[in-house]
Amino acid sequence: MNTQQAAIDARNAAPQLAATSLAVRNEALNRIATALTEHQRELFEANALDMQEGNDLPQPILKRLAFTPEKLQGLLDGIQSLIALPDPLGVVRKATELAPALELRQVSCPIGVIGVIFESRPDAFVQIATLCLKSGNAVLLKGGREALHTNRALHKVIRDATDNLPVGWIQLLETRDDVQEMLKLSSLIDLLIPRGSNAFVQYIMDNTRIPVMGHAEGLCHAYIDASADIPMAVSLTVDAKTQAVAVCNAIETLLVHKKIAPAFLPPVAKALREKNVTLLGCEETRQILPDVLPATEEDWRTEYLDYKLSIRIVPSLQEAISHINRYGSHHTEMIVTNNKEAADAFCRTVDSADVFWNASTRFADGFRFGLGAEVGIATGKLHARGPVGLEGLCTYKWLLQGNGQCVAPFVSGEQTFTHNPLKS
Amino acid sequence: MNTQQAAIDARNAAPQLAATSLAVRNEALNRIATALTEHQRELFEANALDMQEGNDLPQPILKRLAFTPEKLQGLLDGIQSLIALPDPLGVVRKATELAPALELRQVSCPIGVIGVIFESRPDAFVQIATLCLKSGNAVLLKGGREALHTNRALHKVIRDATDNLPVGWIQLLETRDDVQEMLKLSSLIDLLIPRGSNAFVQYIMDNTRIPVMGHAEGLCHAYIDASADIPMAVSLTVDAKTQAVAVCNAIETLLVHKKIAPAFLPPVAKALREKNVTLLGCEETRQILPDVLPATEEDWRTEYLDYKLSIRIVPSLQEAISHINRYGSHHTEMIVTNNKEAADAFCRTVDSADVFWNASTRFADGFRFGLGAEVGIATGKLHARGPVGLEGLCTYKWLLQGNGQCVAPFVSGEQTFTHNPLKS
Repeated sequence: MNTQQAAIDARNAAPQLAATSLAVRNEALNRIATALTEHQRELFEANALDMQEGNDLPQPILKRLAFTPEKLQGLLDGIQSLIALPDPLGVVRKATELAPALELRQVSCPIGVIGVIFESRPDAFVQIATLCLKSGNAVLLKGGREALHTNRALHKVIRDATDNLPVGWIQLLETRDDVQEMLKLSSLIDLLIPRGSNAFVQYIMDNTRIPVMGHAEGLCHAYIDASADIPMAVSLTVDAKTQAVAVCNAIETLLVHKKIAPAFLPPVAKALREKNVTLLGCEETRQILPDVLPATEEDWRTEYLDYKLSIRIVPSLQEAISHINRYGSHHTEMIVTNNKEAADAFCRTVDSADVFWNASTRFADGFRFGLGAEVGIATGKLHARGPVGLEGLCTYKWLLQGNGQCVAPFVSGEQTFTHNPLKS
Repeated sequence: MNTQQAAIDARNAAPQLAATSLAVRNEALNRIATALTEHQRELFEANALDMQEGNDLPQPILKRLAFTPEKLQGLLDGIQSLIALPDPLGVVRKATELAPALELRQVSCPIGVIGVIFESRPDAFVQIATLCLKSGNAVLLKGGREALHTNRALHKVIRDATDNLPVGWIQLLETRDDVQEMLKLSSLIDLLIPRGSNAFVQYIMDNTRIPVMGHAEGLCHAYIDASADIPMAVSLTVDAKTQAVAVCNAIETLLVHKKIAPAFLPPVAKALREKNVTLLGCEETRQILPDVLPATEEDWRTEYLDYKLSIRIVPSLQEAISHINRYGSHHTEMIVTNNKEAADAFCRTVDSADVFWNASTRFADGFRFGLGAEVGIATGKLHARGPVGLEGLCTYKWLLQGNGQCVAPFVSGEQTFTHNPLKS
């Protein structure tokens, strides 16, 4: 099937899917869970084929690519959690009586057709498909080519299991050419969610007119304020840098207020080096820690995704905020301080999706946020920001119900608006 | 001043503006109201210059271009209404306890820097500037060149009056080249709101990587269901077509269920012709109304913005919905029916920003919706849809407050998430 036809089929399914009841969507989720269990042997066999063909891939990729009984169980648990969540659709966000018997409601609804391009993780396929289903969106899925056999098998199982949904709601794209095609289909696809390397996401953002939700970069900062508790600042810095390093919400730059630097830098350097973190620092940092490498302007712009951290001493909270707004990627930042005013100023003025006070940047995650699961993390300003769960897959429409009201008498002044809030 | 420098100045002002209190922003609005009153003579003089230079422009444009004492009074009233509105910033939309003493809040905040390109209406300048101010956004304004003297005078008055705000929050762009420059500044400008002709808005949408909010087209429909009340359907159709014609929320196509067509079409045709509306119809329509012109496929795709209406008889509600989703511009549609099930299906399945039941499409407007005022109407799927007021100029950030929590113990299982909803 060609990409355009797949998108047309998804487009045609979307309005019907939008009109399905929660019961129908939850029933479909249950059928998917049952089918995944019943067809697990086929799935594991397809995955074995991918693992075999990819046997010279690096270990971390093979680990992600593997579809194991444990991952299946995790997916089944996830589907049950998703079923338990309330309906994201039809939620009345706001209601106003415009005039007697003329009621306006802002009601949540699906976005429509979503294209997701994701890495070689079979579990991601199922998570994305089920999040889109629960939120009433038709979906085009393009997974990593290393997982092609597994993705084909998953697509078949899920598509066949959901015969109570409009045909065409889930489409599998297989090749890079399909992605190229997809980027052109702005009249058929409402939203793209690309996941993967910075360069790949940036490429998608630069080469389509379809709105894109996601993040190219995760250049996150920790700022240790003058009034920080030093042991807390050390443990948060170590966690935010080393709990995992090849992830978007790990910190890359540590900003330290000059007043606390002499007391804070030696213990944090010691703790980070015990975790094998290479340190780079500004001139002032190197006066306190003579053995760190010099950091250049380039370091402030670099997402290491590695056991590496740049350190800069700043003269003020304001300078820390300016640094973050200038060099950051609007993803996640943390301040460590016992000074509420400093924390408030930081939270209000830092221009990032997630701003944390005395808590690790590594909490920036859909599951940890209690969103159920996430389709990605968005660093754009519009629509959803930060971890994107069900709500970010929904938009709203304005429904107005009257009994025949025309605008003319309101313009002539014969009738007037009441604008009584019914729900705000 | 060049465009890039203007955008840099706005960008620098934005975080400070985001951190201002409601009191500061309302005080600035009060100062603007006072200054507009005190400097009205300068403003009227500048406008007289524009009117003189544009004296060969068409009458409707001159009427929009004129800055009159009545328009000034309307603006002053509008500013007082805006001051009375609650703070759109800092609203906690949702809060969750992730774990003991670890609280997550989703809090509203400004988008940042907004570029607005609008028609030659001096009142639009003030409305847009004050909406951006109330919502804490820095703004770049480019008005029609016919209003250049007036816009310069308004910009000076407003900028000088708001000396309690971060310098640079409001910037005037003057030329088409400035617009071209602005389209390239995706790292400095967060959102563009273009208003104007379809072709102009489409051009903007096609030539920038900055997110664009707005609508190119308003191809709106009325659907008269089999169970419609005929007198109501006639008056709503006449209002939606003729109360104003050169507006985006007027209807361009009338869809009629075949069962009601023989009874409905003759009276509606009579009423529309009394308002000088030219009718075009499908074959079946012309069997009932032999004197209407034949409508072609092209008519279903045409926004007349004129005393012209295309009519199509449809065999079912489903076919009406398909027609709207296929040919419409996702702006505003209405169904006239006494059948609640038909209305529900229409509201759920029609893929438009505004879907009205027994009420005129002409109600689709920020003021009529009770949003205070609007910066535009958006037909995209993401972020704000339909009339965009203060709320559409805001986004949110996630604020997490802890007392030193690291992620590591949650990953090891030593600690567990509670995910207690505090506000949903």
